[in-house]
Amino acid sequence: MSSEKNTPAIGRLAIIGVGLIGGSLARAMRRAGTVGHITGIGRSRRNLERAKELGVVDNWTQDVASGVADADIVVIAVPLGVYNQVFTTMAGHLGEQTIVSDVGSSKQHAIDMAHKHMTNPALFVPAHPIAGTEQSGVEASFADLFDRRACILTPEATTDTGALQQIERMWQVAGSTTVCMDAATHDELLAGVSHLPHLAAYALVNAVRRQDVGGHDPFSFAAGGFRDFTRIASSSPEMWRDIALSNREPLLRKINALQEELERLRLALQNQDGKALLDEFTAAREARERWLHEHGNKL
Amino acid sequence: MSSEKNTPAIGRLAIIGVGLIGGSLARAMRRAGTVGHITGIGRSRRNLERAKELGVVDNWTQDVASGVADADIVVIAVPLGVYNQVFTTMAGHLGEQTIVSDVGSSKQHAIDMAHKHMTNPALFVPAHPIAGTEQSGVEASFADLFDRRACILTPEATTDTGALQQIERMWQVAGSTTVCMDAATHDELLAGVSHLPHLAAYALVNAVRRQDVGGHDPFSFAAGGFRDFTRIASSSPEMWRDIALSNREPLLRKINALQEELERLRLALQNQDGKALLDEFTAAREARERWLHEHGNKL
Repeated sequence: MSSEKNTPAIGRLAIIGVGLIGGSLARAMRRAGTVGHITGIGRSRRNLERAKELGVVDNWTQDVASGVADADIVVIAVPLGVYNQVFTTMAGHLGEQTIVSDVGSSKQHAIDMAHKHMTNPALFVPAHPIAGTEQSGVEASFADLFDRRACILTPEATTDTGALQQIERMWQVAGSTTVCMDAATHDELLAGVSHLPHLAAYALVNAVRRQDVGGHDPFSFAAGGFRDFTRIASSSPEMWRDIALSNREPLLRKINALQEELERLRLALQNQDGKALLDEFTAAREARERWLHEHGNKL
Repeated sequence: MSSEKNTPAIGRLAIIGVGLIGGSLARAMRRAGTVGHITGIGRSRRNLERAKELGVVDNWTQDVASGVADADIVVIAVPLGVYNQVFTTMAGHLGEQTIVSDVGSSKQHAIDMAHKHMTNPALFVPAHPIAGTEQSGVEASFADLFDRRACILTPEATTDTGALQQIERMWQVAGSTTVCMDAATHDELLAGVSHLPHLAAYALVNAVRRQDVGGHDPFSFAAGGFRDFTRIASSSPEMWRDIALSNREPLLRKINALQEELERLRLALQNQDGKALLDEFTAAREARERWLHEHGNKL
């Protein structure tokens, strides 16, 4: 899918939020040699200075307005909770041709922000690279984070075609396979395979935490299965609050779906229906094994 | 806790089910040099032959009755689903002094079986080593599987004190820290930290599997978090059906508890209550981090 030969160089790239994702995108662009200049924009002076030291950015500023002023492409890589603030500050300082993109987990929310704040929302290209680690900050960033990962783009009918192509190529150059779909489909898909598991992990830990078992520490006999199952419950609570709130409707539907699945298992167990339990467990196991077989090499 | 000096040698040990747990126990006893003779009993001729080749057992038989006949200690290490069959076959062939123990995940069920089938249930010592891997079979067994792991013993008031001490020492020699509690407490604890996570993982995969997202494969954008969260959904459906059915009441309570936690999150999200979401996520994260800090070194 990569088409480096035809990739037009990006003159000036501004990245708002030089963390794991923003920093890794900068490194991937450097690796490909297709970017002229990278400005890092952020709140933490220490992180920005480190980004400069590491050669991830050419210069940095804490001032969004001046940072985006002469950029050809601006990529927003901040938590969803500060989108409103970033879009507000940015508006009015963008060049007429400046393309804006983002990397957030909820695409309808990003589109709403663009329509609310941008003079020309046709130049906003919503994107979501499906990649990440538990780490954060520019120190954790690395150039091949996006290699062979999917990057979902959710353009609208009104999105500028040239802008879409530029962002598509940027992610292909970064190593990703780009996929286009509408924002609603993205949000529904990600609510299921990403947002719901996080909420379920938090809920599970809380269910164990709240149980009273005759003075025993309920966690004392937890083993490897519990550790893996709940690893994502160690994710940033602020980040997941923001993701949940910004993808509310699809996520509410997924919570309902999980509640229904649990109710199905609860009834089977209550009725001592071993066959129903076995069928549900087997179907889940087969679906997971099939997924690992087809997609496991990308993880 | 180990007291190898005072450990009376086990003359003849019979292990019914020479798989991951049974085989590892045999290897651990061999390592300690405190067992005279080990008989392997099972259904799969190939697995038993392999156990002999590997030196895990001294001899083997597919006949439970003759296998247990002259044993000092019999350890049942078969799936919960065949407990009834094993106890039925074994009854009437045990020596008057023979101690029987098991390694199953549901202790009240094991106790019920002993009372139903054994002439002298006071010689039954229910045990549950908190250890395991995703593998099965004697090939997967290894001597230090139980090192530094907890082994829970759930004796009754009527359990023979000498028998309890023997089994306690056997697990200490195997490297475990032994803990005594009543069966109801064990079943409640394990329903929370082990059985519920497995059912939740199966339910989560099924919730994703059943979603219809405009023709897209819902799994295609699943990433590392999903993989880890659902790893235990690749566990044996038969084994987990048996565990669920044999620990029904406590597990039903835990499913209820998880449903309540999900409902709590669903309501907070529906009400756009960011503070409630943050509080729940933070409490879960802190509980997990505390657990990892205190117990993570044992995993």
